[in-house]
Amino acid sequence: MSQAIEQPRIVKIRENVLKKNDVLARQLRKRFQEEKVYVVNIVSSPGSGKTTLLTEVLTRLSKNFKVAALVGDLATENDAQRLQQSGAKVHQITTGTVCHLEAQMIEDSIKHWNLLDIDFLFIENVGNLVCPSSYDLGENVRVVLFSTTEGEDKPEKYPTIVNSADIAIVTKMDLAEVVDFNKEAFYQAIYQSRPNMKVFEVSAKKNI
Amino acid sequence: MSQAIEQPRIVKIRENVLKKNDVLARQLRKRFQEEKVYVVNIVSSPGSGKTTLLTEVLTRLSKNFKVAALVGDLATENDAQRLQQSGAKVHQITTGTVCHLEAQMIEDSIKHWNLLDIDFLFIENVGNLVCPSSYDLGENVRVVLFSTTEGEDKPEKYPTIVNSADIAIVTKMDLAEVVDFNKEAFYQAIYQSRPNMKVFEVSAKKNI
Repeated sequence: MSQAIEQPRIVKIRENVLKKNDVLARQLRKRFQEEKVYVVNIVSSPGSGKTTLLTEVLTRLSKNFKVAALVGDLATENDAQRLQQSGAKVHQITTGTVCHLEAQMIEDSIKHWNLLDIDFLFIENVGNLVCPSSYDLGENVRVVLFSTTEGEDKPEKYPTIVNSADIAIVTKMDLAEVVDFNKEAFYQAIYQSRPNMKVFEVSAKKNI
Repeated sequence: MSQAIEQPRIVKIRENVLKKNDVLARQLRKRFQEEKVYVVNIVSSPGSGKTTLLTEVLTRLSKNFKVAALVGDLATENDAQRLQQSGAKVHQITTGTVCHLEAQMIEDSIKHWNLLDIDFLFIENVGNLVCPSSYDLGENVRVVLFSTTEGEDKPEKYPTIVNSADIAIVTKMDLAEVVDFNKEAFYQAIYQSRPNMKVFEVSAKKNI
């Protein structure tokens, strides 16, 4: 098969997959709205601190709200086990070799739950700064995490996720000094793509 | 289009893409062997220290050998600029939204060079622990980097890359203590998938 023939077919299939995902994501969004569930999709590199931050958030929110979390990983149920310590409802999605979560996986997972019992649903995506940016999961807000230990240039090097996210969180602020994190350069890189982006600085381990 | 019809078509197209990549990778491997170029494919999460380690390696090797590097990123030429400080030949591959390097990109890039002028070719893949594991680039050896700051559980959570790599390098060892890196758990996670894997511990910044 020549490249000239093959390429358009791949693009077409990819468009179909994304279109199907978007249709389902829109249905999910409508359903979440009707059932009054606020949905947060959290995206970052592996090891940026999604699970640590989320454990802290779930623990605090669960005092006053009904909270739940879906957590995506290629393998293991480690993150679900960690998140369950918060007392929230947690379900693990094991993706095998798939590098992102898709709307279909969300729909399949929430079947176990009565949405009326949930005020906030957090979705912890697969650790990957590239692929999850193309997949709408019906969320209200998409949050991208960057850890200080990854370096200040990541927003500039992964513009797709910055462009598709609503909020950025800088994690591991307690390590900023020891890794010479250049905060000014980081903010410059963020604002270059998204001039008004809301950015929070945290350290979940040190409770900052 | 129903899912029952669509799914096999996607799998078929994916198989064709991978098969085409593998055929080209085999041709590249043969060519590298004939022209006596030793090729190293470096894979890790964003911010694990690929470029820092590579700058150090290129600088040291270039005293006695002819070295070159290809570096993949979604956007920016930052890494190529950093690597050029070593004095090696460097070419940036900008992938746009593509989450990995492919054999075709390598073939296109080495057209600029006479392979007889190269002893070692390093390929710095796109920062991603998932997608690059499926794409052979014709390398002699695939190296996966894990930084201590990402946590000791990453080899267990990203088994595909561990299974497809030949060597693992633990980076940012100077930060192991401050981030409570559990070295025993890390090695256990590695050896669970690959009992005899060669593992090196480094800190490129501190010259360990």
